[in-house]
Amino acid sequence: MKQLFLIGIGTGNPDHVTQEARRVLLQADLVLIPRKGADKADLADLRRAICAAILPQQGGPRLVEFDLPRRGDSAAYLAEVDAWHDAIAAAWQAALHPHRGAPRVALLLWGDPSLYDSSLRIAARLDPAPQIQVVPGITALQVLTAAHAIPVNQIGAPFMVTTGRQLREAGWPPGTDTAVVMLDGHCAFQGLPGEAYDIWWGAFLGMPQQLLIHGRLAEVAQRIVETRAKARAEHGWIMDIYLLRRR
Amino acid sequence: MKQLFLIGIGTGNPDHVTQEARRVLLQADLVLIPRKGADKADLADLRRAICAAILPQQGGPRLVEFDLPRRGDSAAYLAEVDAWHDAIAAAWQAALHPHRGAPRVALLLWGDPSLYDSSLRIAARLDPAPQIQVVPGITALQVLTAAHAIPVNQIGAPFMVTTGRQLREAGWPPGTDTAVVMLDGHCAFQGLPGEAYDIWWGAFLGMPQQLLIHGRLAEVAQRIVETRAKARAEHGWIMDIYLLRRR
Ligand SMILES: C[S@@+](CC[C@H](N)C(=O)[O-])C[C@H]1O[C@@H](n2cnc3c(N)ncnc32)[C@H](O)[C@@H]1O
Ligand SMILES: C[S@@+](CC[C@H](N)C(=O)[O-])C[C@H]1O[C@@H](n2cnc3c(N)ncnc32)[C@H](O)[C@@H]1O
Repeated sequence: MKQLFLIGIGTGNPDHVTQEARRVLLQADLVLIPRKGADKADLADLRRAICAAILPQQGGPRLVEFDLPRRGDSAAYLAEVDAWHDAIAAAWQAALHPHRGAPRVALLLWGDPSLYDSSLRIAARLDPAPQIQVVPGITALQVLTAAHAIPVNQIGAPFMVTTGRQLREAGWPPGTDTAVVMLDGHCAFQGLPGEAYDIWWGAFLGMPQQLLIHGRLAEVAQRIVETRAKARAEHGWIMDIYLLRRR
Repeated sequence: MKQLFLIGIGTGNPDHVTQEARRVLLQADLVLIPRKGADKADLADLRRAICAAILPQQGGPRLVEFDLPRRGDSAAYLAEVDAWHDAIAAAWQAALHPHRGAPRVALLLWGDPSLYDSSLRIAARLDPAPQIQVVPGITALQVLTAAHAIPVNQIGAPFMVTTGRQLREAGWPPGTDTAVVMLDGHCAFQGLPGEAYDIWWGAFLGMPQQLLIHGRLAEVAQRIVETRAKARAEHGWIMDIYLLRRR
C-alpha cells in the first residue's frame, strides 16, 4: 500500500457523502470494509451500499472485508485502546496481504475521520508508512444541530465537545455553557441538575429510524432514557449524541 | 416564503458539497446571494459557481443578490450583533419582496450552518416564520484537521472550540488540552507560552491558495504571523483557523 485514503462518509445518510469523497473513492484500488460479526453496529451494509451507489459495476476498486478485533474491557482504558489499535493495524495488514498489488487503499469512516475515530492512530502503526489523505465528512454533531435547527455555539461563545465518560467522571466542563456529548452509553446527563440545563438529543441521526427529543433537561431526561432503551432493544444497537446548554 | 433552506456548502472547495445540499438546492425556487461590495471575502463568486455547477441552465431557481448590511463597530459587541441581525433580516425581506411568489428560498452558507454562523438567528426574526430546513456542511475545523491529517481530540478526551477574542480575553480554556480557535483576526496564540503548545494552522482551507503551518508554537508563531500578514495583503482578505494542543 502506497496511499491510504481515510474518507469521511457522514453518519448514516448516503446523501451526506461529498463530491470529494466520491472522487477519492473512485481513485482507490481497494476498499477495506470492517465487520463485527453479527453486530449491526458495524454498518458494513451501509458501507457496501455507498460503494454500490458510487462505484462502477465493473473495473472499480475491489471490496475486501475483514473482521475487526474486539477491544479488551479491563479497567486500564488507555492501555486497552492501545493494544486494540495494534490489533486493528495487524488486521488491516493481514487483509491486505493477498492484494499487495493494490497501491491505493480506501477506508470509509463514519462521520469525520478526525472526530473520536482511531483510524489515523492505527494508520500511524503501518510499516512501511503509506502516504495518508484525509477526506472530511459530516459529523454526528452537525447532523444533530441541523436536525434541531439550532446553532452549536452562542454568539461569540466557546463550546466543549466531550464524552459520556468525561461528563460522568469530571462533571460539567468548566469555561463554557455549551457541551456536546458523544460516546455515552449511560445517559451521563442524569448526573446534572436538570433545572439548570436544556438538552437537544438525537439518535440514529441521518437514518430512517432517527429520533429527536429536546427540552428542559428536568422535563425530558426520563423520556430520553426510556426512548433510548426501547430503541436500543428494538434495533439491537444505538448511537446517540446530545447538546447541553446551561440556562 | 414558506420554506427556508439553510444549506452548508463547505469552506471554499466546491467538492465539499454533499449530495443532500445538491438535492435541496435543486428544490428551491430562489437562492439569496449576499454581496459585500468590493469585498472579496463575501465569496459571492464561489456561491455563483456552485449554483452554476449544480443547477440546470434553464428552469432552475432564480438567483437574487442583495447587499449585506455592515455591522457597527462600537464597544457594545452583543448589542451591535443584535442590531446587525435585525438589519440582515430586513435586507432578506426587502430582496425577497419582488419575488413573493417564490415559496422555497435557499441560502448557501459557508461551512456548516450551526458553527459561528448567524443565519438561524436571523431567520428567527422573519415574520411570518418560514419552516426551516438545515443541511449540514463541512466545517473549516474538519478541513483543517484533514489537511494536517490529525485527529481533533486525544483518545477519549474533550476539546474546546472557541474564538480569538475568547482566547485573548479569557486565556487558555480550562478543562482541556486541546482548543480550536476560529474568528481570530489578531493571532491570539501570541499571548500563550509558546514552549507549552503545539499548533496546527491553516488559511484559505480547501481553496487553491491554501496555507498550512504546524510545529511547536514557540518555533512557528512568528512565521504564522508573517505568512498571514503577507497572504492577507496579497489577496485582500484572509480566513484562518488553528488547533492548539498543550504538550
Ligand atoms: C466513535 S464516535 C465516531 C464519531 C464520528 N467520527 C463523527 O464524526 O460523528 C461514535 C459516536 O458518534 C456519535 N454518533 C455517530 N453517528 C451517530 C448517529 N448517526 N446518530 C447519533 N449519534 C451518532 C455517537 O455519540 C457515537 O457514540
Ligand atoms: C463566521 S465563521 C463561519 C464558520 C463556518 N460556518 C464553518 O463551519 O467553518 C468564520 C471563521 O471560520 C474559519 N474559516 C472559515 N472558512 C475557512 C477557510 N476556508 N480556511 C480557514 N478558516 C476558515 C475562520 O476561523 C473564520 O474566521
